[in-house]
Amino acid sequence: MKSFASSHFCQIMISIFAFMGLISPSFALDEIVMKQTFKISQYTTLGGQTIFDVKIGFETYGKLNADKSNVILITHYFSGNSHAAGKYAATDLSPGYWNQIIGPGQALDTSKYFIISSDTLVNINPKDPTVVTTGPLSINPKTKKTYGSDFPVVSYGDLVRVQKALLESLGITKLQAVAGPSAGSMQALQWAADFPQAVGKVIAVISPGLSMPALSVATLNGWSKPILRDLKWKQGRYSKGNEPTNGLADALQAVTVSAVDFAWADKNFGQKPADPSKMPLQDLNHQYLIESKLEEGALLRTKNADANSFLYMVRLNQAFNIEDKISSGMPPVLFISVKTDLLFPPELVDVAAQKIKAVGGKASVVKIEGIGGHLAGLTDIQKASDQIKDFLNKK
Amino acid sequence: MKSFASSHFCQIMISIFAFMGLISPSFALDEIVMKQTFKISQYTTLGGQTIFDVKIGFETYGKLNADKSNVILITHYFSGNSHAAGKYAATDLSPGYWNQIIGPGQALDTSKYFIISSDTLVNINPKDPTVVTTGPLSINPKTKKTYGSDFPVVSYGDLVRVQKALLESLGITKLQAVAGPSAGSMQALQWAADFPQAVGKVIAVISPGLSMPALSVATLNGWSKPILRDLKWKQGRYSKGNEPTNGLADALQAVTVSAVDFAWADKNFGQKPADPSKMPLQDLNHQYLIESKLEEGALLRTKNADANSFLYMVRLNQAFNIEDKISSGMPPVLFISVKTDLLFPPELVDVAAQKIKAVGGKASVVKIEGIGGHLAGLTDIQKASDQIKDFLNKK
Repeated sequence: MKSFASSHFCQIMISIFAFMGLISPSFALDEIVMKQTFKISQYTTLGGQTIFDVKIGFETYGKLNADKSNVILITHYFSGNSHAAGKYAATDLSPGYWNQIIGPGQALDTSKYFIISSDTLVNINPKDPTVVTTGPLSINPKTKKTYGSDFPVVSYGDLVRVQKALLESLGITKLQAVAGPSAGSMQALQWAADFPQAVGKVIAVISPGLSMPALSVATLNGWSKPILRDLKWKQGRYSKGNEPTNGLADALQAVTVSAVDFAWADKNFGQKPADPSKMPLQDLNHQYLIESKLEEGALLRTKNADANSFLYMVRLNQAFNIEDKISSGMPPVLFISVKTDLLFPPELVDVAAQKIKAVGGKASVVKIEGIGGHLAGLTDIQKASDQIKDFLNKK
Repeated sequence: MKSFASSHFCQIMISIFAFMGLISPSFALDEIVMKQTFKISQYTTLGGQTIFDVKIGFETYGKLNADKSNVILITHYFSGNSHAAGKYAATDLSPGYWNQIIGPGQALDTSKYFIISSDTLVNINPKDPTVVTTGPLSINPKTKKTYGSDFPVVSYGDLVRVQKALLESLGITKLQAVAGPSAGSMQALQWAADFPQAVGKVIAVISPGLSMPALSVATLNGWSKPILRDLKWKQGRYSKGNEPTNGLADALQAVTVSAVDFAWADKNFGQKPADPSKMPLQDLNHQYLIESKLEEGALLRTKNADANSFLYMVRLNQAFNIEDKISSGMPPVLFISVKTDLLFPPELVDVAAQKIKAVGGKASVVKIEGIGGHLAGLTDIQKASDQIKDFLNKK
């Protein structure tokens, strides 16, 4: 068991999220949880490359029943990790990201379900001590050095296959559901596409639908560009202490700008200057408050993040596509969108649901409101509690 | 008179716009037009700094009547210029950006109105031979060198005051209307706020409303960042032949990504690779088609653009705010939005119209559909023709 509640990094992350208004005071899973580690000696990617000493982290909430039939898998978002509920220590400032809907009697009911929240390959925050992942910053057992850009490009198909190996190591072969926000929704949908017999239901929150839209491919390319342009990136061959930190900070800032909405920005910053004695119309070097605060937050977040890992995570997101894998035999899908989501506007899942129905599958759509746009899929998820319960209870 | 139809730069610009599907074949003003230049010996900014030898370009369509009372001013968008209608030569591939609604019998009826389309200070494309502007790339008469970052930061208030001087040089003191898309809408609204007696009506197309939303302040900051990070930018003191071209290209690419919508990107690119023999999941260096094409387009556009000018234009946009200047005495405003505009979603002008009405002013909102999102405010403006006509005819 690891507990990082008092770690400096963890405090920084929490303070950034708290600053951004991302943390809700509600507390459903009033429990101390722990990060566990799953290891396999090797994994061969769908692209045919073998990675050795593969590990990913996971957390569990609730109890596994005797026949191992009460399992829900939770899959995390782009910059998240498997800490979906509870706290590592009572002194933690806030619980996992979906804590509002995970707990006894909650939408994801821990008195009924055994919930496994899983990390992924190429997590973008491999330096976060609570993250367990294998990716470009991992040591290549062959060379005893970090992989860097020698790490194989992985896809959502790879992410879910490593998760499947994790579940099989626990003797679990069938899931009641897979649920996740954003990149987590794509893992959930990939599970349904690749292993329809193993998945009972899919809850896809703030999802792009069945494939990455071309505009999002371009948006994600825009996130990556500051890293690619940073001279310290060196085609991915940077060394410790000499990382492309500026590029990474700009990339992380771009993610935040993509993931929020107009109301969130107006409420938290407005058009205020960073310093009232330095008005932005006096000098181009003067800043707006939203510029300086997002910059500050992004720079702090570079302490946990890794530039190459960011690029790998962008690429697998750009490549997401299960359009040709939907069928009448796939599990029912509940799409939950946020009305003001600018990254994945809710119209995208209307189209996805129509396509699933057109091939004889089952899909429904719920749209919630919430300040924060895309991020309201994390902060306001409790608004869809009843619909999640109904969906899970449906025969 | 200048004609640049055959210039290499102009062809490049046209081919990029044509590639992007931005150019419509419709041709309302079937006329050869010319760029004219307005000069004043000096202009003192609202910030108190004096610029000498100030010039901006303009074009006119239709005829000025005897009492100079039939004038409509058109103000251009962020990366545009005063070429709103007609062609410079019959061989031009396409006419000005709002040609669809400018011409005899059109919404902006040249058989009735004398239309002046004006350039602005700090145009981002000062190297485009059809652009006449004063900004960071202009020669400072004192030093005989380009201003660079010594150019004073200007505001929308300054842009419209130089336009006012242009109109006064033609003996025009009262406008039937000011109309413009995007940054042009902000000029139009600034006119109404600063000179309500001089403006009959305002047509604000793809507008953010009465001030720049905080999220857009951050988005525009994201556009600027690649320039600020480019080592060749040198705090704005770069020299000819050694410009921050990569940063400028990334900035221009970011503008395009912000200004289009999902349908446009899906239609033009989809999730296709740039090269089918180089699949993106094989290698991080492989690209998607939308990445390579937008990059290619942006790089071509750097030939006309200037990095410092881009930063100045971003800053004045970030600072746009007429919230405290609206009144019952202001001219009526017609807001025209595009339903899928992701840069300035149409909800923003609903709020603006409500605020104007709340102080006793007149405002109405029209929402059009069109593939292209924000850019449909240029390409699909003819869909609002009837509403524009009605609005202009209203007593």
